[in-house]
Amino acid sequence: MRSRERIAAITVNKNVLLLGVDGGGTSCRARLCAFSGRVLGEATTGPANLRLGLEQSFAAIFAAAAVCLSQAGLPRSRLGNIVACLALAGASEPSHLAAAQSYPHPFRKAIVTTDAHAACLGAHGDRDGAVIVAGTGTVGWAVLNGKIHRVGGWGMPISDEGSGAWLGCEAVRRLLWALDGRLAWSGLLRALGHKFSNDPHAVVAWAQSASPADFGSLAPLVFEHAAAGDPVARKLVGLAAASIDTLAARLIAAGATRLAVVGGCAPFLIPLLAEQTKAYLVEPAGDALSGALYLARSAAQSLAQVA
Amino acid sequence: MRSRERIAAITVNKNVLLLGVDGGGTSCRARLCAFSGRVLGEATTGPANLRLGLEQSFAAIFAAAAVCLSQAGLPRSRLGNIVACLALAGASEPSHLAAAQSYPHPFRKAIVTTDAHAACLGAHGDRDGAVIVAGTGTVGWAVLNGKIHRVGGWGMPISDEGSGAWLGCEAVRRLLWALDGRLAWSGLLRALGHKFSNDPHAVVAWAQSASPADFGSLAPLVFEHAAAGDPVARKLVGLAAASIDTLAARLIAAGATRLAVVGGCAPFLIPLLAEQTKAYLVEPAGDALSGALYLARSAAQSLAQVA
Repeated sequence: MRSRERIAAITVNKNVLLLGVDGGGTSCRARLCAFSGRVLGEATTGPANLRLGLEQSFAAIFAAAAVCLSQAGLPRSRLGNIVACLALAGASEPSHLAAAQSYPHPFRKAIVTTDAHAACLGAHGDRDGAVIVAGTGTVGWAVLNGKIHRVGGWGMPISDEGSGAWLGCEAVRRLLWALDGRLAWSGLLRALGHKFSNDPHAVVAWAQSASPADFGSLAPLVFEHAAAGDPVARKLVGLAAASIDTLAARLIAAGATRLAVVGGCAPFLIPLLAEQTKAYLVEPAGDALSGALYLARSAAQSLAQVA
Repeated sequence: MRSRERIAAITVNKNVLLLGVDGGGTSCRARLCAFSGRVLGEATTGPANLRLGLEQSFAAIFAAAAVCLSQAGLPRSRLGNIVACLALAGASEPSHLAAAQSYPHPFRKAIVTTDAHAACLGAHGDRDGAVIVAGTGTVGWAVLNGKIHRVGGWGMPISDEGSGAWLGCEAVRRLLWALDGRLAWSGLLRALGHKFSNDPHAVVAWAQSASPADFGSLAPLVFEHAAAGDPVARKLVGLAAASIDTLAARLIAAGATRLAVVGGCAPFLIPLLAEQTKAYLVEPAGDALSGALYLARSAAQSLAQVA
């Protein structure tokens, strides 16, 4: 690198802002950093899964970026200095990814990846490793010898067993069984029934437009009742943990030796995992946002190198 | 009845045409009869489940009525002589029922009921009895001492276990497991994978807008492979039959002593039902169309009595 180029690169790095975005089915988290790594702002906005539509996803991203800048005391004009990594659920679908990559944005540069990939980099950094994201959806992801392995995470209703959305859907199914007299009432089912005035027609009306996030919003109730010993809730949480074990077995078979289980459901499911899975568990070094920021920094560096 | 009224009633009955409609998630069947009971025409058009929207449902109904009239060699002007019973999936939802009841139609009179109720009347006539409709969806329905009992049939993804749509969805779930390496391939899964070029992204793209009828369109493949001994297909069909047993147990507990299992999936599931269920099975006297025509005739008679 000649000296004029080196000066240009340093200039870029000084002005650049890094934005990491972790957009899932329930919320969009964002973290703004200086190139030095200093955190300038953090925000959480609404769902940003690309399956919900580009408009909704990017509205959540832009809103989160605006809050981050405002927290940093920076004007909106600095959007043009941001190098962003948008780690989005649904970005594993080639059509969604292409659409997101060409969506107009105010950033200097934006790269798009999956939330699972960012979670994997966040958990393991440069090391090989695997992650299972157990949030609104579930997906297994590993980076091994530079190769990506993916298991599950194909979306409801055909996939995402063991996720928050799956737990909510299965709990509602059992509420209908109880309302029909096909299953004995339990504390979970009574609490769930109360939300719908014990009217199956109210359940149907709600379910007809319920998103994965809506179903997932019932998962905390399931976990709460499972902790209190409710048999229906314990059964469901046990089935969810078994689904995570299945994802884990596949990632381990692919060669993963380090596995992090992350996401909103993780704290409740990890204690119930099979010993075979637990033997591979590691604490994640960082979260999906730190993985996204890692990728944003790399993108900023390559920008600087061509400046 | 005074003699002038009696003459008016006879006049009405002579001109009136009866139309029975059985509108499900996959097709809308219609049968046009003279008041004497003579069949004048039959037609099958597209899905008419009210959950798919009023417009689609009534478009299917009107198209079927037009075909029936044409088969009978009658002009469209005779629509105004038709007393119709529209037995529609989804009509058990109060909001759907009210909307369907006030939807403009060209018939002299139209009454709306559920497809399950018409199937129950068709199967048992004036006698007490129960029916399980195992078609695109599943629902249990009984008329016992003038009281209606209903079990299940709340729609996908929260209900309708054991239905054609459920079987298709579960088969697709297992295809994704096989594509991920989470389940051993079988003949069923290979045949299903072939439909999607073994590309999970193609499965996701299809599933995102797949209707219950679309999922149900895969059920024949499941039945075919189950008959050939495929372990995945046999497992699914066995689970479906067990779901029908659960509906049956509830109807029997409510007091049903005669149970007919009808619908597109019935021939494949009946042989696998529990002995406890089989002990109550009867052959249906007629189908949902004959039940709908029974109700249409009653409606025509009450019209005549007020003429």
